[in-house]
Amino acid sequence: MSDTPHFSAAFRQQLVDLIEWRRDVRRFRTDPIPPDVLTEILRLATHSPSVGHSQPWRFVLVEDPGLRVRIRRNFSAANSEALHAYKGEKARLYASLKLSGLDDAPVQLAIFCDNDPQAGDGLGRQTIPQTLHYSVAGAVQTLALAARAWGVGVGWVSIIDPIDAKESLDVPEHWDLVSYLCLGYPQEEHRDPELERFGWQQRLPLESFIFRR
Amino acid sequence: MSDTPHFSAAFRQQLVDLIEWRRDVRRFRTDPIPPDVLTEILRLATHSPSVGHSQPWRFVLVEDPGLRVRIRRNFSAANSEALHAYKGEKARLYASLKLSGLDDAPVQLAIFCDNDPQAGDGLGRQTIPQTLHYSVAGAVQTLALAARAWGVGVGWVSIIDPIDAKESLDVPEHWDLVSYLCLGYPQEEHRDPELERFGWQQRLPLESFIFRR
Repeated sequence: MSDTPHFSAAFRQQLVDLIEWRRDVRRFRTDPIPPDVLTEILRLATHSPSVGHSQPWRFVLVEDPGLRVRIRRNFSAANSEALHAYKGEKARLYASLKLSGLDDAPVQLAIFCDNDPQAGDGLGRQTIPQTLHYSVAGAVQTLALAARAWGVGVGWVSIIDPIDAKESLDVPEHWDLVSYLCLGYPQEEHRDPELERFGWQQRLPLESFIFRR
Repeated sequence: MSDTPHFSAAFRQQLVDLIEWRRDVRRFRTDPIPPDVLTEILRLATHSPSVGHSQPWRFVLVEDPGLRVRIRRNFSAANSEALHAYKGEKARLYASLKLSGLDDAPVQLAIFCDNDPQAGDGLGRQTIPQTLHYSVAGAVQTLALAARAWGVGVGWVSIIDPIDAKESLDVPEHWDLVSYLCLGYPQEEHRDPELERFGWQQRLPLESFIFRR
């Protein structure tokens, strides 16, 4: 098609920067994200692939202050529980890490997977039903990359009881929480993940991930 | 930091094009992907976020012709089985769809999740263990976007028996198949998904995915 975009080497280099400079952000400024920017980021997320074009992503903007308090308590309880899994120096390091931006981020977004979507009529997911959830997870990454291009930081709060969160947010029974995100402008930009910077886990070499059969 | 990249409005517009013109490709040319391009695409995929920096992605390049035959048979059996779920016009439409590029794509890549990775020491996944798999699914989307920027098409073969594929590929027991991909240069470029173009499922309006609480 004549309007097919051409992606230049210069664009690719910027895309590499985008991918490498996307961070999981936990330190947010409190100033708001313009609504049109947020809408565009969500729109782009919905242009991710989904199994059978099922489009199972459901974005819940958590705005009510009382609900945010409940989610904050959910995280705190889960985080305290998680701390018990570590001992000694590792426990001290864990306790020192900042693992969520729930207190400051202007936008909180719970992303669910509708595990029984009408769209797509079941195509492509009979052997691996979790492809629905994988579709949503892919959309979260599209969202994160798009956000970074607009200067918006995204932090994935995985330390959360998904059943409790689902009850708090009063969503349909057949929705599964895939991701709870904080969004806002980051206080700092970094090329290295916070868990590397603070000595929890280093990046492994590319070769260690590649196998041949 | 002084070397923090700045992303311009012009870059963002190209990123929008990239996201909108990424397609699930099933019609490939057979010419090879240069090894350095493939390596760079895989490298960028590993710069996706992972829970606790666990980096659970395992990329298996499937090169052996005999193994490819087994995978092709796996797909064919799963696809025939899947067809039985549809009746009448829907069954005829399903049978007419091209749902994999296994016959032509020069590269086949099985992407597994190591569900017991050493890296990250369990951080962040006690309440939602599937975040490991979601990390891998996010990496698949990074891979797909990066590939598109290099003109490489990616097709996700979800109609496959994951246990059978795992046995064929002889990978560790604690690896789960998340995605089986075909990669190669596409025969055609499109802005609309093939499942839209051939009348299986239309794109739903953005508003239908957004909720507020």
